[in-house]
Amino acid sequence: MLRTKTCGELRIEHVGQTVTLSGWVQRTRDKGAMVWIDLRDRYGITQLILEEGVSDAAHLTLAKSLGREDVIQAEGLVIERSAKNANIPTGEIELKITSLKVMNKAKTPPFTIEDDTDGGDELRMKYRYLDIRRNPVRSALELRHRLSIEIRKYMDALNFLEIETPYLIKSTPEGARDFVVPSRMNPGEFYALPQSPQTFKQLLMVGGIDRYYQIVKCFRDEDLRADRQPEFTQIDCEMAFVERKDILDTFEGLIKHLFKKVLNVELPEFPHMTYADAMQYYGCDKPDLRFDMKFVELNNLVKGKGFPVFDAAELVVGINAQQAASYTRKQLDALTDFVKKPQLGATGLVYLRYNEDSTLKSSVDKFYSPEELQKWATAFNAKPGDLILVLAGGADKTRKALSELRLHLAEELGLRDPKVFKPLWVIDFPLLEYNEDEKRFFAMHHPFTSPHADDVHLMNSDPGKARANAYDMVINGVELGGGSVRIHNRELQKHMFSILGFSDEEAQNQFGFLMNAFEYGAPPHAGLAFGFDRMCAIFSGKDSIRDFIAFPKNNSGRDVMIDSPSFIDQKQLEELSLIVNKK
Amino acid sequence: MLRTKTCGELRIEHVGQTVTLSGWVQRTRDKGAMVWIDLRDRYGITQLILEEGVSDAAHLTLAKSLGREDVIQAEGLVIERSAKNANIPTGEIELKITSLKVMNKAKTPPFTIEDDTDGGDELRMKYRYLDIRRNPVRSALELRHRLSIEIRKYMDALNFLEIETPYLIKSTPEGARDFVVPSRMNPGEFYALPQSPQTFKQLLMVGGIDRYYQIVKCFRDEDLRADRQPEFTQIDCEMAFVERKDILDTFEGLIKHLFKKVLNVELPEFPHMTYADAMQYYGCDKPDLRFDMKFVELNNLVKGKGFPVFDAAELVVGINAQQAASYTRKQLDALTDFVKKPQLGATGLVYLRYNEDSTLKSSVDKFYSPEELQKWATAFNAKPGDLILVLAGGADKTRKALSELRLHLAEELGLRDPKVFKPLWVIDFPLLEYNEDEKRFFAMHHPFTSPHADDVHLMNSDPGKARANAYDMVINGVELGGGSVRIHNRELQKHMFSILGFSDEEAQNQFGFLMNAFEYGAPPHAGLAFGFDRMCAIFSGKDSIRDFIAFPKNNSGRDVMIDSPSFIDQKQLEELSLIVNKK
Repeated sequence: MLRTKTCGELRIEHVGQTVTLSGWVQRTRDKGAMVWIDLRDRYGITQLILEEGVSDAAHLTLAKSLGREDVIQAEGLVIERSAKNANIPTGEIELKITSLKVMNKAKTPPFTIEDDTDGGDELRMKYRYLDIRRNPVRSALELRHRLSIEIRKYMDALNFLEIETPYLIKSTPEGARDFVVPSRMNPGEFYALPQSPQTFKQLLMVGGIDRYYQIVKCFRDEDLRADRQPEFTQIDCEMAFVERKDILDTFEGLIKHLFKKVLNVELPEFPHMTYADAMQYYGCDKPDLRFDMKFVELNNLVKGKGFPVFDAAELVVGINAQQAASYTRKQLDALTDFVKKPQLGATGLVYLRYNEDSTLKSSVDKFYSPEELQKWATAFNAKPGDLILVLAGGADKTRKALSELRLHLAEELGLRDPKVFKPLWVIDFPLLEYNEDEKRFFAMHHPFTSPHADDVHLMNSDPGKARANAYDMVINGVELGGGSVRIHNRELQKHMFSILGFSDEEAQNQFGFLMNAFEYGAPPHAGLAFGFDRMCAIFSGKDSIRDFIAFPKNNSGRDVMIDSPSFIDQKQLEELSLIVNKK
Repeated sequence: MLRTKTCGELRIEHVGQTVTLSGWVQRTRDKGAMVWIDLRDRYGITQLILEEGVSDAAHLTLAKSLGREDVIQAEGLVIERSAKNANIPTGEIELKITSLKVMNKAKTPPFTIEDDTDGGDELRMKYRYLDIRRNPVRSALELRHRLSIEIRKYMDALNFLEIETPYLIKSTPEGARDFVVPSRMNPGEFYALPQSPQTFKQLLMVGGIDRYYQIVKCFRDEDLRADRQPEFTQIDCEMAFVERKDILDTFEGLIKHLFKKVLNVELPEFPHMTYADAMQYYGCDKPDLRFDMKFVELNNLVKGKGFPVFDAAELVVGINAQQAASYTRKQLDALTDFVKKPQLGATGLVYLRYNEDSTLKSSVDKFYSPEELQKWATAFNAKPGDLILVLAGGADKTRKALSELRLHLAEELGLRDPKVFKPLWVIDFPLLEYNEDEKRFFAMHHPFTSPHADDVHLMNSDPGKARANAYDMVINGVELGGGSVRIHNRELQKHMFSILGFSDEEAQNQFGFLMNAFEYGAPPHAGLAFGFDRMCAIFSGKDSIRDFIAFPKNNSGRDVMIDSPSFIDQKQLEELSLIVNKK
């Protein structure tokens, strides 16, 4: 080893030992007769000291010449510091240098290697290898590692087998767009990279592997949005001979285990909420339950009182922001502007302020008497000091806008504490959604999802009304994972494909291997998948997944460090029997 | 759960309990008044019993109708068997059925689900989901899982971080052929799938992650040979601030840990052998040390005695097959045929039999006196009962042929016991090999390998003579993994690329990101990678890697189960700006 200790491990009890450290120069302080070097590695920082008349003169000269990020090896005697630094674990000691060697010089880095760097996003990505030296990025990768270790411990203890499924699979037009890989040996034919190992894990169930999981890369060629990556990591899981309850219990257990082991947080039992309730009370299928502000529908209270906006609205619905009555006119105007943004498209915002003196003040005073407004307040269970905000319009659009307002307000009121975790299961999603453009149903989850046991009869009569036996795990308004009980019967699967507009031939051509497998003794099975990048971000209370990926791509799907994608040799194209069609 | 116990866990102490099992019908025996069902799942087989007059008549009828691989759920009372079966762990009990339900019928499988199946390779691959139900395949996947768990335990305990590197990277013409992925958003540009995460793990070292590993899929678009897969799994590792010894110690430790934990085998310290010695004494760089038969060179003893074949040969070299003097004339002829095969190309085989009565009998008696032959025997340290076999010709070709003969003979003599494990490190490989066709050097390992410390001076004067600081771990004649100390200096890396025939511009264009990184404080680093598929096979004493991969491709790179690669939609091609050039 080119070191005997790391830069993070020396303590007062090591005083008197001669040790060798290797690492990067964080900074030097040159006081003429004395030079201090802060030496950094993955484990911490240790102070080195050289002194004129004591240290070797050549070493002192060398030390004075060192620049930031030079890689050095230093041997020395651990001594007690006179001026201790209580902020770092090695702050009680320093290393009196007896030998000093430069292993590799460094050019001045394009940004500072500090927790708060002066480097912008693009520069950090281009020099990601320097960015990774910074504590926040390294810690993010360490957290990811720790989570993966604990996931595997939990799964292994429950007899789940981690099984690798193939990366070179078959393209299917259903779902998102595939990345494809031309086959050189079969001109014109392509493999596809998996969007998920869905069909393979189901085949493993047919194969008798009743408990499978895999931490696995998946790929989607989507038009990228902010914080979407073309390659992402899933924790992919499947079980046979189970019902929904078993899946929810098992994976609620996993998440509790991770929170306990990694964050020392004990989570309570996860509540279950139907999709219908989530939409009615929170306006979205992944409600943030760190705060209340449940939707209250007012149609019965507000209609027919002469206020045309409410009278014309399909839905009048509001939230109660507790202790927000102090919102100023200006703040209320800003909220109104927020809901009027084109993405939300509300026409206005009605407020009802429940003053501390128990009087009520509303923006629609002239249509509603104090007694009527008191009824509103009662409906919201409001107390003096609360602020009620009401939207009206088409039901879906209004719920969506109110959902955004609810989150926005909670943010403003400091109710979205990243250190508080409120998980829940959202269940009973719709099975299908109708696409008006294509005039056909699409699977809301995927085509392998089983209808809810109570709704199987609807599959012939009114499939659009059927609920799926599907579930999502949501934490703090973010979908952490989701899955479903699967179809394991050939006829039902075939019927599902026909509902989705597949001809028998198309279904057989694309998914024949799965439907055939169902004929050879397929057990009942169910599963789910978690987004691992997102999970890491949630555990850190961060919004962006970027820093939890060692080498992420930018929002155009480009790796700016290695400069990829890139052009390939004409010879490569010819071997693949491909011509680029430059339009 | 659709079961309360698995088919592998019921024992005599469960007698009297009512349990529910789910699984596959392995077989039924119908004796009219009594029906037995062997119910199978991943964990074992449990016998179910139904009896006329005791069991429900409908259940009895249903039981009689069951076919192989039907999926059933059975509730019953655990009772003690009268006729116990000592061959299976559940053999002391059976389940007296109180409820029986068919969960899914099965068509008759195309091959038997038994340890020794009647299904050929192609059929098994097409119905891999049925093949996986068989114990040997399931056990292979279980072994793979167990190895991966133990690898991660060991690495995590040593502070290695598992870090995921990207799959969509950049194509580089050096090395094997890349699989490429067209970028829809950048017409004409491509990503490449990684042949290994080599440059990324080196960048992690530059990034201060001093201990990295990853169990990761890699891809090579090679013309497939038997038992090669286009996608394969590596255990990829790298360390900073280390020398060769540290890598060898750390990963010798890993392999010892795995053998101890998974096979309960204690391995001794691994011997080190130079590449030069391996070639001289075993004729190959991955010697099988389960048996001796070290090469003995005879040039000094045999030349100038009038035997023209030996006189003309560059090298005369042989092996001593202990206790093989009883080989018949016919067996010796077969060995001669073996070495004369076109792949080996020897012109003949000379033998010297050391008879039990201490007389010597050779095929070249007329050229060599008994005293001279006795000198041969002494050189081989031969004893009565041994058989010496000698080849002659060009040195490289003769060593290669003798190496093959050595393995062939050991196989015949039963010296290649798959339960015996003889690991070693082969070190000091050549850095470069000269390609006569392309008239240039190629890197023997890869272009990032550091020359041996003693040979750096040769990099300018005679690079073809330089040894690499590279090492392979070999077990039982199979390369389990290999790696090297890396170059971490920009100038040396640049010089290496120039030796390999890269122009400065080409080097910068393809590997500029790495060479630039070396300027910002790159630490000394080294690493290696193990072939995980191969490791699984070695631990099982198997030759083929196929069964250790859940869904392997055939020798044409095709997945015959899902029928991939396949044609894609014209619309997909258009989106990718590609035209297939049908020649």
